[in-house]
Amino acid sequence: MAETSQSGGDWYDAAVGARSVAIIGASSRPEANHYQNHLRAYGFTGEIYPIHPRERTIQGLPAYRSILDVGRPIDLAVVMIAAAGVPAAIAECRQAGVPVVYVGSAGFSELGEEGARLQRDMVEAAQGGPRLVGPNGNGIASVANNQFTVAIDSVRPPLSSVRDDGVAIVSQSGIVGASCFLSAQRAGIGVGKYFSVGNEADLGIPEIVERLVADPAVSVILCYIEGLRDPEGFISAARTARETGKKLVVLKAGTTAEGARAAASHTASMAGSDRVYDGLFRELGVIRARSITQLIELASLLVRTDIRGRRGLVLSVSGAQAVALTDLMSNQGLTMEAWDPGTRAKLKAAIPPYLNVNNPFDGGGPMVRDFDVLGAILDAAQADANSDFLIVASCALPDSEEEVAKQIAARYRQGGKPLVAIWQSGTGKALDVFNKAGIAAFSEMDRAVEAIAAALGAGGDTSEPRHRAVGKPSAEILSLVTSAVDAGHAALDEVASKKVLALAGIPTVRERVCDVATPLADVRAELGTPLVAKIRSAALPHKSEVNAVALGISSEYELRQEVTRLLELADELGLPDADVVVQQQVSIGLELLIGMHRDVTFGPVVSLGLGGVLAEALDDVQILSLDAAAGDITRALAGLRHRRLVAGFRGMPGADPAVVVPVVENFLTLCRSLPDEVLEVDVNPLVITSDTKEAVVVDALFVLDSERRPGGN
Amino acid sequence: MAETSQSGGDWYDAAVGARSVAIIGASSRPEANHYQNHLRAYGFTGEIYPIHPRERTIQGLPAYRSILDVGRPIDLAVVMIAAAGVPAAIAECRQAGVPVVYVGSAGFSELGEEGARLQRDMVEAAQGGPRLVGPNGNGIASVANNQFTVAIDSVRPPLSSVRDDGVAIVSQSGIVGASCFLSAQRAGIGVGKYFSVGNEADLGIPEIVERLVADPAVSVILCYIEGLRDPEGFISAARTARETGKKLVVLKAGTTAEGARAAASHTASMAGSDRVYDGLFRELGVIRARSITQLIELASLLVRTDIRGRRGLVLSVSGAQAVALTDLMSNQGLTMEAWDPGTRAKLKAAIPPYLNVNNPFDGGGPMVRDFDVLGAILDAAQADANSDFLIVASCALPDSEEEVAKQIAARYRQGGKPLVAIWQSGTGKALDVFNKAGIAAFSEMDRAVEAIAAALGAGGDTSEPRHRAVGKPSAEILSLVTSAVDAGHAALDEVASKKVLALAGIPTVRERVCDVATPLADVRAELGTPLVAKIRSAALPHKSEVNAVALGISSEYELRQEVTRLLELADELGLPDADVVVQQQVSIGLELLIGMHRDVTFGPVVSLGLGGVLAEALDDVQILSLDAAAGDITRALAGLRHRRLVAGFRGMPGADPAVVVPVVENFLTLCRSLPDEVLEVDVNPLVITSDTKEAVVVDALFVLDSERRPGGN
Repeated sequence: MAETSQSGGDWYDAAVGARSVAIIGASSRPEANHYQNHLRAYGFTGEIYPIHPRERTIQGLPAYRSILDVGRPIDLAVVMIAAAGVPAAIAECRQAGVPVVYVGSAGFSELGEEGARLQRDMVEAAQGGPRLVGPNGNGIASVANNQFTVAIDSVRPPLSSVRDDGVAIVSQSGIVGASCFLSAQRAGIGVGKYFSVGNEADLGIPEIVERLVADPAVSVILCYIEGLRDPEGFISAARTARETGKKLVVLKAGTTAEGARAAASHTASMAGSDRVYDGLFRELGVIRARSITQLIELASLLVRTDIRGRRGLVLSVSGAQAVALTDLMSNQGLTMEAWDPGTRAKLKAAIPPYLNVNNPFDGGGPMVRDFDVLGAILDAAQADANSDFLIVASCALPDSEEEVAKQIAARYRQGGKPLVAIWQSGTGKALDVFNKAGIAAFSEMDRAVEAIAAALGAGGDTSEPRHRAVGKPSAEILSLVTSAVDAGHAALDEVASKKVLALAGIPTVRERVCDVATPLADVRAELGTPLVAKIRSAALPHKSEVNAVALGISSEYELRQEVTRLLELADELGLPDADVVVQQQVSIGLELLIGMHRDVTFGPVVSLGLGGVLAEALDDVQILSLDAAAGDITRALAGLRHRRLVAGFRGMPGADPAVVVPVVENFLTLCRSLPDEVLEVDVNPLVITSDTKEAVVVDALFVLDSERRPGGN
Repeated sequence: MAETSQSGGDWYDAAVGARSVAIIGASSRPEANHYQNHLRAYGFTGEIYPIHPRERTIQGLPAYRSILDVGRPIDLAVVMIAAAGVPAAIAECRQAGVPVVYVGSAGFSELGEEGARLQRDMVEAAQGGPRLVGPNGNGIASVANNQFTVAIDSVRPPLSSVRDDGVAIVSQSGIVGASCFLSAQRAGIGVGKYFSVGNEADLGIPEIVERLVADPAVSVILCYIEGLRDPEGFISAARTARETGKKLVVLKAGTTAEGARAAASHTASMAGSDRVYDGLFRELGVIRARSITQLIELASLLVRTDIRGRRGLVLSVSGAQAVALTDLMSNQGLTMEAWDPGTRAKLKAAIPPYLNVNNPFDGGGPMVRDFDVLGAILDAAQADANSDFLIVASCALPDSEEEVAKQIAARYRQGGKPLVAIWQSGTGKALDVFNKAGIAAFSEMDRAVEAIAAALGAGGDTSEPRHRAVGKPSAEILSLVTSAVDAGHAALDEVASKKVLALAGIPTVRERVCDVATPLADVRAELGTPLVAKIRSAALPHKSEVNAVALGISSEYELRQEVTRLLELADELGLPDADVVVQQQVSIGLELLIGMHRDVTFGPVVSLGLGGVLAEALDDVQILSLDAAAGDITRALAGLRHRRLVAGFRGMPGADPAVVVPVVENFLTLCRSLPDEVLEVDVNPLVITSDTKEAVVVDALFVLDSERRPGGN
């Protein structure tokens, strides 16, 4: 066997621009020879080399015993043999200098430990040689060179409609990938590149997305993700996508199941995995789809429109649609402003006098019967200065449907104001007309408005600096954590926790730890009144239930009485380690929560939401990455559900970004430098005071991994 | 002109079972003679009498100058002449003894005051004669006698597919009605009866629904409602529908716009019109659809399945679908239990060993390739004892789609366990197969699960007694209200409000009104400690802001101090009417809100939700009618969004129905007897005490219409 030593070339170029494809495991039964069939059916003009242990020819092409017998350069090898033989086949691909192999065979890690071992052998066999896509997927397709290297019929557009609109699909599920391909094609969206990544033994979603982002022919990338093996890689790819203006749309499966897990803090128990994805996607500018249907709808919207603002102008042929669209827009946070007066006046003159020029505009019968009127309406809507996009909605009307749609399409100017067309209860003809004209079209009003909102939802400013640097913890913070871990503590107590926060520049309530010997006159003088006194003891988590908290202390005399009472109570409760914390009593306006926990996929992330004893009952937090910028924090606050509390309610202060953002920024800086032994942080409440409207931490808890020793050694 | 004096007959029988139709305003232009064209196109075998001022024949039928010239019985007259002539035409219909007239003409109340006058003239002309449907709609259709008395092409199923599945459509919007008709027909749902009610000059939605409910051929009624002219009639029709097992599905338009209005109480400001519809619909068993699409999906589901429980068994061909459906089910409050062990074991033996029998069941390739396996799975799922319905989901697979769907349909037994089929990213062939087999079928997973949840959502027990009797207010309550209204007060103060509640059997906090002369030792002895003291004055709404509330009073000495201080403060604040209310201080567990306000459509309704100062920030209330039964109250509590608070949170009491329901029942009884001068009632908070877990009203407010005199005279 000859050692062919061609240079491998770039895996991505070879995968989507193969000039030659070897099919290891080509079938002698034509009906089962899927890869070869599809390549030929779509007019692949490169070389195809069937590899078969016995046959001399397969469907008219010379067959080879081994890829090493081909003797010519091979860009892409497809492997479709039984799993056990795959590592050896990959080794031959390495010898043959193939830059990329698509392993379509199943029977690897998806079947348990034995398969996983085989998968590791396969990856090892590829070391220093080809990159692998798969195993356990259904192929790679690239429209540019008619290269449908795919196993299944589903990924099979009619030849007449094969085109590339700059859309790529990357899917962890073969059947979902195929479904997306089919649905996109039916919606008239040309998917130019398709990767079914299967088990991701070697090349995973992040690396493939990274290359698609860099590909000038790709503008929209649709991903189906069940779980991320390399979250950092994904984050990096998403950042690049955002910076280069490429749209990344992700359907993340399994939102409920992963959510629940035992946790020691408020933060961790409230920050389900789904919320973490939501928060990080928002920061990364990743658009989240909720179903395959919405994934395709978003692709259509993103390919065909470039909606950049939330102000919609709604044109409809029925009052009922006008009302429904107004509701839907409002529920999705989209706005509808009045027409600009100049355009309004011009339109008013061009239409029957009984039509009112409002937003929504109900054009009634004239809009679909008199095409001069329709034209005047569409032209005026395009010219209106008070809207960022148009929605044109019609319904039913089977006889005039096609003609009305054609009139709308004829007036549409690519590059003009973004237009979204809706035809409800139609025959499909209007949608066909819109699709052919490159107009984003929907058959349902709610789907249209939801897609617009989802596409706009992933906003944010790409120019904001991100804090990627990881700092070192200050010696003092490290020492506080180290000594607690060394002592086997499961947490830093309230006082130590607040000390760490204060060292990080976060305002904490002024407090003093007192015992019998403490000169309380000094404490009173230092902290002012009113004061709170409470027992501090690791063995007493629920203080108020045993009356171990005293509120509203207004004099040195009362302070002395209460400290004495609390120390006696601690004795009675058998808490030998106990002392008393005396702190300034703040006027509670709004109670927030800031937390850090380590997500199973993404590692440390920060929660920001409503706090206080009702935190979990309100269940209202948003997730931030440790790199979040000020704008991200502001958007997270705006994303909280209890808007009236966040806005300031009945004279109470709200979560003013000017007050909250600097605190969260300091918390993020702290979290970036915390040693791994800090598992969770719960800052609850962060009080916005009702009198001075300042932020001050009243209670906090650092949960430690007492089985690890800190210090990074 | 001869006075024909036939007996009119029943309007409904004539409208949906006409043996003869007169068309007043039949057009001499065939292309514009819509009503006549549609009647003939669908093979209407009754008589058609075109009425035309000049023509002798119209499209081959003898024409008459006037309906009075026909000289034979006429069941239904259609009027399609200019609005100004309609009253005279109706008068002739009355003379001719026509039992029902469809007025298709437009130009009435929808065009303002002049049109409204014409509409009143028209109704007057019909007095003692025909009932009217319309004006300003597009017709009536009845499949049973091929009677498509419709103006527009949209309501036009292909002749081959005209059938009656017991579904009726009643719509206030002609175009929405037509859209529903078209969409239903495309989904294979036979709409047997269609009413476009237009302006409802005479017959409105309630009366038509009442008759459809009584029609044995109708089982599902789809309504599109923009506003209810006769809410009591609608409620009565909905009750009858529920009692007789007919399904009423309503799409209510305009949910956002009506919501906001100025209000004097928490209750009224939080109970937007949309919430009132939600609450009353839930009580009435009306199923609420959110879009035309969902209206049709619900029709399909209700005609084709009879799902009576929340436990679903999910069968899918892909893991991705299994995961997504599990999420969707959970999010919609549907459950998935394990297979019953016997069925599980039997299935396990009949399928490849690597398939696990879980719920969701991921049947993978074998399920769509091996029809014996598919059959075994479907049979076992039908037999499973732990599920109320099946979802069978597949996707893509264009080559085998039709055959797999046929196999599923072949195994489906009408009357067996309800089955919902999903085919995602399909060609449409599978959906056709399912539709033809009478299987509820969807192309999207989320739509399917949402429809199931919506259909189940309108639960409730029809056998529960409703309190329709309106009582008289007690003399004492009436006197409290009367004297306040007579005095020109805009509200009952806190003490009087709680007195009314106490008279209605609702537990209120014990309290005493005190001034300088009150023997405080007695007050202390009567109420116990701790106590709260606060200034009572109509001129001081926000007491805590001026320190006019004293909490935690624990002795007679402190009580004397605080009462003195508060009376002095009242003097300083210039409140000559002020006294001091002393009340027992309750231990606050959970704070609820109960309220009454007068909805613009439905009149007095009751709100039940989370209370306290955060009530509006939490914005979590459900609406009850004054007739609500115990089960309705329990369901309203269960429908609150902040479930953790309602369930009891961190040792705090929840909203235990055993405690809350009797209080709400007494409140409902009170509200049924309150004079009209009580505009709103705000009971906030109703505290569930943390110690004794009892319900007690701590504060309340009755808002009065001080410009009316009570007493019903």
